[in-house]
Amino acid sequence: MSRFWSPVVHRLTPYVPGEQPKLTNLIKLNTNESPYGPPPGALEAIRAAADDTLRLYSDPTSERLRAAIAQAHDVGMDEIFVGNGSDEVLAHAFHALLQHDAPLLTPDITYSFYPVYCGLYGIAHQPVPLDDAMRIDVDDYRRPCAGLVLPNPNAPTGIALGLGQIETLLRAQPDRVVVIDEAYVDFGADTAIPLVRRFPNLLVVRTLSKSHALAGLRVGYAIGHPDLVEALNRVKDSFNSYPLDRLAQAGAAAAIADREWLARTTGKIIKTRIGLTSSLRGLGFEVLPSQANFVFARHPDRDAAHLAAALRERGIIVRHFRTPRIAEWLRITVGTDEECRVLTDALGTILTRNAD
Amino acid sequence: MSRFWSPVVHRLTPYVPGEQPKLTNLIKLNTNESPYGPPPGALEAIRAAADDTLRLYSDPTSERLRAAIAQAHDVGMDEIFVGNGSDEVLAHAFHALLQHDAPLLTPDITYSFYPVYCGLYGIAHQPVPLDDAMRIDVDDYRRPCAGLVLPNPNAPTGIALGLGQIETLLRAQPDRVVVIDEAYVDFGADTAIPLVRRFPNLLVVRTLSKSHALAGLRVGYAIGHPDLVEALNRVKDSFNSYPLDRLAQAGAAAAIADREWLARTTGKIIKTRIGLTSSLRGLGFEVLPSQANFVFARHPDRDAAHLAAALRERGIIVRHFRTPRIAEWLRITVGTDEECRVLTDALGTILTRNAD
Repeated sequence: MSRFWSPVVHRLTPYVPGEQPKLTNLIKLNTNESPYGPPPGALEAIRAAADDTLRLYSDPTSERLRAAIAQAHDVGMDEIFVGNGSDEVLAHAFHALLQHDAPLLTPDITYSFYPVYCGLYGIAHQPVPLDDAMRIDVDDYRRPCAGLVLPNPNAPTGIALGLGQIETLLRAQPDRVVVIDEAYVDFGADTAIPLVRRFPNLLVVRTLSKSHALAGLRVGYAIGHPDLVEALNRVKDSFNSYPLDRLAQAGAAAAIADREWLARTTGKIIKTRIGLTSSLRGLGFEVLPSQANFVFARHPDRDAAHLAAALRERGIIVRHFRTPRIAEWLRITVGTDEECRVLTDALGTILTRNAD
Repeated sequence: MSRFWSPVVHRLTPYVPGEQPKLTNLIKLNTNESPYGPPPGALEAIRAAADDTLRLYSDPTSERLRAAIAQAHDVGMDEIFVGNGSDEVLAHAFHALLQHDAPLLTPDITYSFYPVYCGLYGIAHQPVPLDDAMRIDVDDYRRPCAGLVLPNPNAPTGIALGLGQIETLLRAQPDRVVVIDEAYVDFGADTAIPLVRRFPNLLVVRTLSKSHALAGLRVGYAIGHPDLVEALNRVKDSFNSYPLDRLAQAGAAAAIADREWLARTTGKIIKTRIGLTSSLRGLGFEVLPSQANFVFARHPDRDAAHLAAALRERGIIVRHFRTPRIAEWLRITVGTDEECRVLTDALGTILTRNAD
């Protein structure tokens, strides 16, 4: 029964998030969370904020949090928009900046939420194929469009563009907004934030879910020209005035302020990624060159769905997309060294057994 | 500069939330927050959740929280939708259920966010005038429409409809969704939740911001037929998979479970409201009969904007809307007995001084 639904609802194909299993003894390498806990100062700030002041609304403009972001990235307060996870920030960006009478361009292999936003906001979507090495060719993005959305590094490939390539995209589309989704940038790619002052069409989107180990706090933000930020605020203030609760604002501000913690933990994850990549290659996997906290890998003669199921039986969850072009690949989050060792041992066993 | 904006952004007139002053020694009676802190169990649950598990995404389906809601209201898990404050729940309801080729009906004097949602989602809005006593006449809502949205009690009047009147609305619009926004219902009105099983077109929206004293935690929910909940989930999963962080889910579940705390604190606020109403009438104010945690009052020969400014000078903030029909009214949140005494003392002084 659906006579009550708005017409758009019938046409939606919602995003399917990675599994959040209730079991606790699993090795969870499926949703690119950090294997390390959040910055201790963030937890302290949250506990301190858990008092009677929760009876009061949170700051609708998240000033303290935006001040921490301004400091961390050396940008102005009016160049910052914050939201309830980068997914909400992206949703508002699609609504506020990308709804034009032309198709939106994204890579064909990319974050699978982008086409879902297009469906929600009635935006035509034109996927642009990655090349055979799963790389973005920036020259493919010169056509008329409603805007560009690209993750850097891309997901689930992990491959990063250089800033020169981002500049090429920005120059190719001077009248359209180019959204660079930097969810994974802290693991080795170059941030485009320094380009914001030169390119009024650049919106950089960030999340605290990955490198800040706060997926459970739901905080994301965008940095761009004040004109773009104003559009986002207009939509936000027509949707939900207080998207960030008091605890999230306090915890996120403290997390962003701890730059030393960020450098240390991302350094550890990068080191583990290098080891994991090497081990997987040793097992015969093809592994794309990742600048993220995950690797994208396929085995030349093993079915990826089968491998994922065999790992799952051993209490290890990785992400497998049943999608054209990548159905033979697995996306594996970089865990602790120990988790990665258990994973590669299990894969070694599975591959040996199947070879019998 | 705005060449990058989506066309809809140019047409938006965003909601303006009540002031959240940075000063702490004010008597804040402007945004209908609770004068009492949240249930102690909610604060304990939040502190317990502020640990390393914040590195993991929150449960996208908020199961534990929905189980607490199911228990509190004796409804099924599939009849419950949760969101980041009732503002987000309402936004999704406008998008998922009220976008039809006809105008949406709301009272002309009501929560001022409703017409803003209409603007965001391209829904025509037809305000239906309250009668001269500021009451909703349910017979005015029989015309063709995209749906109805009414708060019960209404805000900012505080006047409640009875369940018989709600039934009349539901029967008058069998093919359209009727949203009853029960933000303030715990302060004396009757909930329409028991009607959900009989009326598949009823969606009841709730918030923890008022009676549960958790405005700073941003949790709201809706209760309705599973078909309506499915539409809301489709939109939510096309917008943001994880709208509630781990702390909000834990705190809200604990708050909802403490029914004794709810009865006790709402009882205190109702008692204070009765006293405040009587004091204001003693000062010559007309006060509407409120079933909410605020009163709506006007003085026959004093300018409301002037009164609000004079109170503000004395460190007391109340809400004044510069809106036709209610420009002479003040909306005053029911604070503690002491806060209300300070308020009425101040009003007494202001009225005397002006009479000189």
